[in-house]
Amino acid sequence: MTDKFYPFKPHSHRVTTTDGLFSSAEVGLANRNSGILLEMLTEDITPTGAHYLLNHFDVPVIDEATHKLEFSGEFESPYSLTMAQIRSLPSVSMPVTLECAGNGRAGVSPRSHSMPWHYEAVGTSMWTGTPLLPLIERACPAQSVVEFSFTGADFGYDKGEGHYFARSMTLDQMQQLEVLLVHSMNGSPLLPQHGSPLRIIVPGWYGMASVKWLVDIKALTEPFTGFQQVRTYQYRQTVDDPGQPIQGMRVKSLMVPPGVPDWSTRCRHLQPGATTLTGRAWSGLGAEIKKVEIEIDGLWHNASVHHRNSKYAWTQWAFEWNAQPGEYVLRCRATDSLGNTQPLEPPWDVAGFANNAAQTVHVYVD
Amino acid sequence: MTDKFYPFKPHSHRVTTTDGLFSSAEVGLANRNSGILLEMLTEDITPTGAHYLLNHFDVPVIDEATHKLEFSGEFESPYSLTMAQIRSLPSVSMPVTLECAGNGRAGVSPRSHSMPWHYEAVGTSMWTGTPLLPLIERACPAQSVVEFSFTGADFGYDKGEGHYFARSMTLDQMQQLEVLLVHSMNGSPLLPQHGSPLRIIVPGWYGMASVKWLVDIKALTEPFTGFQQVRTYQYRQTVDDPGQPIQGMRVKSLMVPPGVPDWSTRCRHLQPGATTLTGRAWSGLGAEIKKVEIEIDGLWHNASVHHRNSKYAWTQWAFEWNAQPGEYVLRCRATDSLGNTQPLEPPWDVAGFANNAAQTVHVYVD
Repeated sequence: MTDKFYPFKPHSHRVTTTDGLFSSAEVGLANRNSGILLEMLTEDITPTGAHYLLNHFDVPVIDEATHKLEFSGEFESPYSLTMAQIRSLPSVSMPVTLECAGNGRAGVSPRSHSMPWHYEAVGTSMWTGTPLLPLIERACPAQSVVEFSFTGADFGYDKGEGHYFARSMTLDQMQQLEVLLVHSMNGSPLLPQHGSPLRIIVPGWYGMASVKWLVDIKALTEPFTGFQQVRTYQYRQTVDDPGQPIQGMRVKSLMVPPGVPDWSTRCRHLQPGATTLTGRAWSGLGAEIKKVEIEIDGLWHNASVHHRNSKYAWTQWAFEWNAQPGEYVLRCRATDSLGNTQPLEPPWDVAGFANNAAQTVHVYVD
Repeated sequence: MTDKFYPFKPHSHRVTTTDGLFSSAEVGLANRNSGILLEMLTEDITPTGAHYLLNHFDVPVIDEATHKLEFSGEFESPYSLTMAQIRSLPSVSMPVTLECAGNGRAGVSPRSHSMPWHYEAVGTSMWTGTPLLPLIERACPAQSVVEFSFTGADFGYDKGEGHYFARSMTLDQMQQLEVLLVHSMNGSPLLPQHGSPLRIIVPGWYGMASVKWLVDIKALTEPFTGFQQVRTYQYRQTVDDPGQPIQGMRVKSLMVPPGVPDWSTRCRHLQPGATTLTGRAWSGLGAEIKKVEIEIDGLWHNASVHHRNSKYAWTQWAFEWNAQPGEYVLRCRATDSLGNTQPLEPPWDVAGFANNAAQTVHVYVD
């Protein structure tokens, strides 16, 4: 893989944000990318087309018939695989909850110019593919290899730097997280916008690690310094801070907005009486959800937490509410098996990553 | 169908907009609804999950096994159909381009508070179903019937008024437009968010007419006065103007943004030399695209317009550009067989509907 087709001079597209208001460019990103419809949090598996979508660059067009996955760099036995070969490998199907690392950015102040998610950048699909680790071992990484880069076919610019989207992981990380090489989603071949014909799924980490349109896996003897590895997806307190890499998803919960919506504000209208509040909670690195609490009128109540279906998929929760007439701002917050609880105020970093503050839902009981 | 389950008192959710900047509620709508990825305008049929999506209320959950379409009101032989019966009717598949009437609203000033589309609210699917007219005739509308309402299962509030989403048409309109009762999209059953299990498709009109989650077709002896028919989807010059009903799509064209993007601004980078600019153009009511022009550096050039595949689907166009280094704002505009040409400035109405002004694409040739 080379950059020879894109010998551009860098441009700096400087943009600023306004607190509480959003630019036309931010809205353009929101129109292009798409979030889950929160009422679909009722479903264990997010319906096709309703899973969140965040693509940095344009969706590349790849001919599945000629597409090959290359194992390159410091392998002793490098090889490549066609899609037909990949589809004939031992098959695993696994429900995995993915969340965008930028989810919640709209609530962070001051706000970085990027995709202005509120709560919607999450989804759970049934992913089908084959375990990645045996394929890497088959290529025999050299003794001196420290990690592996995954490069997609999607090319573009960020902060004036042209690059293919690429990320890296160590062998230990891949082993711990049961990384899959994936060709199907919800029982059908990957859709173009979700990485067709081939991507990886990194369970337990934010979505940036699950590289789409996978072209190349390279064995590296030095840590990977690609743009998407070191220039972004880092927790930074200042712009000069080298940062801490973003990896596992922070504990989070979302509520299915109860009742019916007002079209344009999405405030909710609910009848008085018994109603079941329900939703989902998840955490990263395979941690379990231990507790979900619902705040009503300033008091926190424990919801019942269902048994989860899979180590890397979200957990359903429910709470019976006897709703009395009035105006409410409901909140929910989860605690995981590592003892992490969602904060009530957004955590802050320069780029507005991983905001897992408790969701608020505005409800009128009339 | 009754409103007995939703006896809410009206609330007024008043919101204002700021010229050139967007509110958190507008961004929430943009995160929830989703537009086509413009690079997918290369495809005759928009890939599943990439078609634009605009849902006023929550996606209702409908059990296909028990779902029935009712023919009610002033029919002499009212009846109902199960989904199994509908699937066994004579089948038609037809590519239809749908565009949201609110497409382009972000470019209208001053701007109405609603979904802030730029250009993305369009798509072409292969819709499969059965012609609607014979089913209506089978129920024998009474002599006094003037039109028919189509009611979906989706309920919510707009401007304090609770209602199921519903629209109406006359028999003449349905005949002229070859309206379909649709159960499948791109060869698969409708997805929940696109109207599962049953919707109509009204070719040639803006998308609001293609009612999703269809429950009831009612024969009316007076013109329909439902919220979505008379309180919105009207061209109004003042808020008190009763307005002109929005029906056929205005002539429009879009360009596949050439080259590669900058992530956050979506400005484009292109190599100097020969490049093919390409895109789509369409109009309403079955009108053909007669001309597409591309503006480069203040000069307009004629693109070649392909033969269209179907009366109600968009047409591809192409223009060979010998791109010289520099910064460009490209534009495209189409003219249809009725002599309508896209304007260069957004047309204005109170709610920012049907803005078909020429698209601008910012390109650096480096």
